[in-house]
Amino acid sequence: MQLQLTSPLDMHLHLRQGDMLKTVAPLSAKTFAGALIMPNTVPPVDSKEALLAYKEEILNAVNNFTPYMTLFFKPDYNYEFLQSVKEDILAIKLYPAGITTNSEGGVESFDLKQLKPALEAMSELEIPLCIHGESGGFVMDREAEFIPVYKQLASAFPKLKIIMEHITTKEAAHALLEHENLYATITLHHLYITLDDVAGGLLQPHLFCKPIAKRPEDKEALLELALNANPKVMFGSDSAPHPKSKKEAPGCAAGVFTAPIALQLLAQLFEKHGKLDNLQDFVSGNAQKIYNIKPLEKTVILEKKESEIPKKYGEVVPFMAGQKIEWSIT
Amino acid sequence: MQLQLTSPLDMHLHLRQGDMLKTVAPLSAKTFAGALIMPNTVPPVDSKEALLAYKEEILNAVNNFTPYMTLFFKPDYNYEFLQSVKEDILAIKLYPAGITTNSEGGVESFDLKQLKPALEAMSELEIPLCIHGESGGFVMDREAEFIPVYKQLASAFPKLKIIMEHITTKEAAHALLEHENLYATITLHHLYITLDDVAGGLLQPHLFCKPIAKRPEDKEALLELALNANPKVMFGSDSAPHPKSKKEAPGCAAGVFTAPIALQLLAQLFEKHGKLDNLQDFVSGNAQKIYNIKPLEKTVILEKKESEIPKKYGEVVPFMAGQKIEWSIT
Repeated sequence: MQLQLTSPLDMHLHLRQGDMLKTVAPLSAKTFAGALIMPNTVPPVDSKEALLAYKEEILNAVNNFTPYMTLFFKPDYNYEFLQSVKEDILAIKLYPAGITTNSEGGVESFDLKQLKPALEAMSELEIPLCIHGESGGFVMDREAEFIPVYKQLASAFPKLKIIMEHITTKEAAHALLEHENLYATITLHHLYITLDDVAGGLLQPHLFCKPIAKRPEDKEALLELALNANPKVMFGSDSAPHPKSKKEAPGCAAGVFTAPIALQLLAQLFEKHGKLDNLQDFVSGNAQKIYNIKPLEKTVILEKKESEIPKKYGEVVPFMAGQKIEWSIT
Repeated sequence: MQLQLTSPLDMHLHLRQGDMLKTVAPLSAKTFAGALIMPNTVPPVDSKEALLAYKEEILNAVNNFTPYMTLFFKPDYNYEFLQSVKEDILAIKLYPAGITTNSEGGVESFDLKQLKPALEAMSELEIPLCIHGESGGFVMDREAEFIPVYKQLASAFPKLKIIMEHITTKEAAHALLEHENLYATITLHHLYITLDDVAGGLLQPHLFCKPIAKRPEDKEALLELALNANPKVMFGSDSAPHPKSKKEAPGCAAGVFTAPIALQLLAQLFEKHGKLDNLQDFVSGNAQKIYNIKPLEKTVILEKKESEIPKKYGEVVPFMAGQKIEWSIT
């Protein structure tokens, strides 16, 4: 059995910088036509110069792959600045300060008055806003606690497209459907694992991510959206490479590396649920409509043939390392 | 400021075997008069021979310390066997099969008919039953899901003393008070940490334990019981040493090592809450009444003097390694 995917897109990707970028960017470029590149580098991508330099660094590492760039949201972005970068970015990514890897310079407060000028300008310029939506509360509650902020922003800026990034809960899955201008990305790993896989048996640092994997009923709510390719959701891997030495030590960094095996594992999942016909929309069609993009042409052929996930890519251990999977890329 | 504790008892302790036992047993003996020794060794302590051999191994490693021995519960223990070991044990420990470290030989089913002969004999012989009370469900729900089993057993065997080991939830804290024959141990670490400390920031394998640390409101419920030295609860560290190499690798073993710094950190906690007067009952008095024991005389003097928790004891990394604490043992 074969499956042909046209121009797959990964609408939430971390490529890092330097040697790590050189290791992981080609792996995404191998199977995706493009990806939305997260700006939480060190320092963050928050100026036109940084943006263009980062884009060039990525383009130097890949072929036949579009890095859709993002800026790291700052409340002081004004209309003129945003207008000057509009052609170079696809979206702007907002992080609450300190909520995840390299997010220290993020937003301290969701006071609408403070955010209004930047968000109104984005709305007018039709620049979508991607949000890492977590409160600073108890780890299992953070996403659900953030829902009121999503709703408030969606209501206050009805023409601003807001992407709820890497949703992990049934609460987010429901809220998404209540506002026309809310959309969401869903990762591969949150369709596969719950907190039980991270910490229910032995502790598995390679499955530790932010937002943390939640409860079985949360995973079910995400599967419902993804497997049916609900037009409000699109695939975003949140693939986040960290060197093995950083994942397997006390103070393990958050992040799961899935980029090179994402399509194969999505095919396995969608086939298992009899939803293979919906995969094209989940990994490309929906994103094209939400972001109004026409990706470069790229055909990826998957074959139902057992393969084994490599134990490492460079110094990075992938999701399900060493495990057998049912699909391969020809 | 000084605090004198008389004959502190640790009513839930893992000493392991061989070299590990030789490392950790003297650390418990240094500050405790005695401890209830868990039987989930490899193989488990489930015969009189194993029991006496294990007791001897412990006694060879310590001075001036009473190892209160336990047997690993098996449904086929009969009255004659239990009578023959009664003088050698203080309790019997029941594990659901596979629920934690070395528990594979535990109980597969809580069918009362199957358990009745052994539990009736224990009741008649006045041997308390200690239980690791977790279901096989979602990791955050396991203890709450097990509560009906505790209640069923408490009702069916009203003269059997049942100890809910290392309780971690408000549900267990409440259930405990509903049956006269239910008691509980509370660990040090569950009075200090929640899941946020384990996985809310970076992932901390040295705080990974079973049952996993729960929510803030659960910790509050445990503090309420412990700080007031509620007569239904007693201190049981569940101190569980694993070598550093096993804790700092994928598939990290569950267990927090607290024995050598437990009294110092309890003093710090009780003082902070203005409850220092209750510590003697929590770490000794309550256990003496619940188990009807008179421990050997041992006076431990704690002093309010800053010290630093060692980074390692042999190959074992303790709870809060390298951190400053306010109390020392003189």
